[in-house]
Amino acid sequence: MRLRRDKNAAPFIEDCNKIIKNPYEYKGKWQELFNNSNPIHVEFGAGKGGFITELSKANPNINYIAVEKAETIVYKALKHASDISDNLYFLYFDVDECINIFEAGEVERIYLNFSDPWHKNRYKKRRLTHRNFLDKYAKILSTAGEIHFKTDNKKLFGFSIEEFSAQNWLLTEVTLDLHKANVDNIMTEYEKKFSEQGLTINRLVATHKQA
Amino acid sequence: MRLRRDKNAAPFIEDCNKIIKNPYEYKGKWQELFNNSNPIHVEFGAGKGGFITELSKANPNINYIAVEKAETIVYKALKHASDISDNLYFLYFDVDECINIFEAGEVERIYLNFSDPWHKNRYKKRRLTHRNFLDKYAKILSTAGEIHFKTDNKKLFGFSIEEFSAQNWLLTEVTLDLHKANVDNIMTEYEKKFSEQGLTINRLVATHKQA
Repeated sequence: MRLRRDKNAAPFIEDCNKIIKNPYEYKGKWQELFNNSNPIHVEFGAGKGGFITELSKANPNINYIAVEKAETIVYKALKHASDISDNLYFLYFDVDECINIFEAGEVERIYLNFSDPWHKNRYKKRRLTHRNFLDKYAKILSTAGEIHFKTDNKKLFGFSIEEFSAQNWLLTEVTLDLHKANVDNIMTEYEKKFSEQGLTINRLVATHKQA
Repeated sequence: MRLRRDKNAAPFIEDCNKIIKNPYEYKGKWQELFNNSNPIHVEFGAGKGGFITELSKANPNINYIAVEKAETIVYKALKHASDISDNLYFLYFDVDECINIFEAGEVERIYLNFSDPWHKNRYKKRRLTHRNFLDKYAKILSTAGEIHFKTDNKKLFGFSIEEFSAQNWLLTEVTLDLHKANVDNIMTEYEKKFSEQGLTINRLVATHKQA
């Protein structure tokens, strides 16, 4: 979506200590920011942040990082938030850059929730499950690191399965109707809306197979 | 399904030259039966045979073999059929036995259409996409041989993706809504019924990755 500029965004972000303005500086030392040695879980495309905020409260022994592309979205996510846990920070950068933000093996889990499907084939390289992204995720993830992916979009789910398969990822917990599966699940804002409309939610977990 | 015995089945099968009564004898020499060197495509669980009968007419340069477990089903498939092509034969045997019916690499394509989902987890080994079956298919398929699998059953589709992934198959042409995808498709009897009820059809193509 195209975002309207908000004159309050810049000063808010400047003041907010839950938003990391210089993420490149933390490469290889994210645990120092959290001041512990807990595993790091990242959400790429965190949107309004409802999912990861709830998740971070439920799992105090995990360090969470919410990533959005535009600082304006991070501002929108945080301007009304009053209760961000100690184990959660927000970052804004292009996911393309992730290998310059995280050291090899530094991340234990990546969440991709309802990523933009980029319907048109000519934009398929922008889909966050395109093989070019998967190759980057394979680098920053630890050996047993996982991608947890969910989407209501059937085409994106089919495309993603093909991409994971081609790049040698092991697919587990594959479901085409998450809300009927017997799985712990925190719903995103989109997910609540979509499922109220009767759409089924697809989900999978992917682990990179060692060569 | 449990089948009622039909006293006409045995004599019909005995007389019908489109039903191979001694399939084990053809192992490694199926092309001799067809009297040509065309590729061999097999459907496991052919049911009433509508799909493969139509397919065999559209592709005279492919040899087709329709397989069902019980001779009674083969009888039902054929008793009213008057127009079976030269390039199509019917067999009855348990798919478990396929490695004793086909030589290694003898089959170029396997169709699995709307296989029994065997809902209960304790019967999962009976699902035709269980890894035990996939390992057998890998043996009888040629190097670039493919499995073409479709089902309306979401749980079976998710399960199958996990099994293919675990056994190192490459997944392509993955779609969760076949009838909206731009793919040539011959519908089975079940498929027509299910899609009229508004159910979406899932499909994938799987190729075994070389070790």
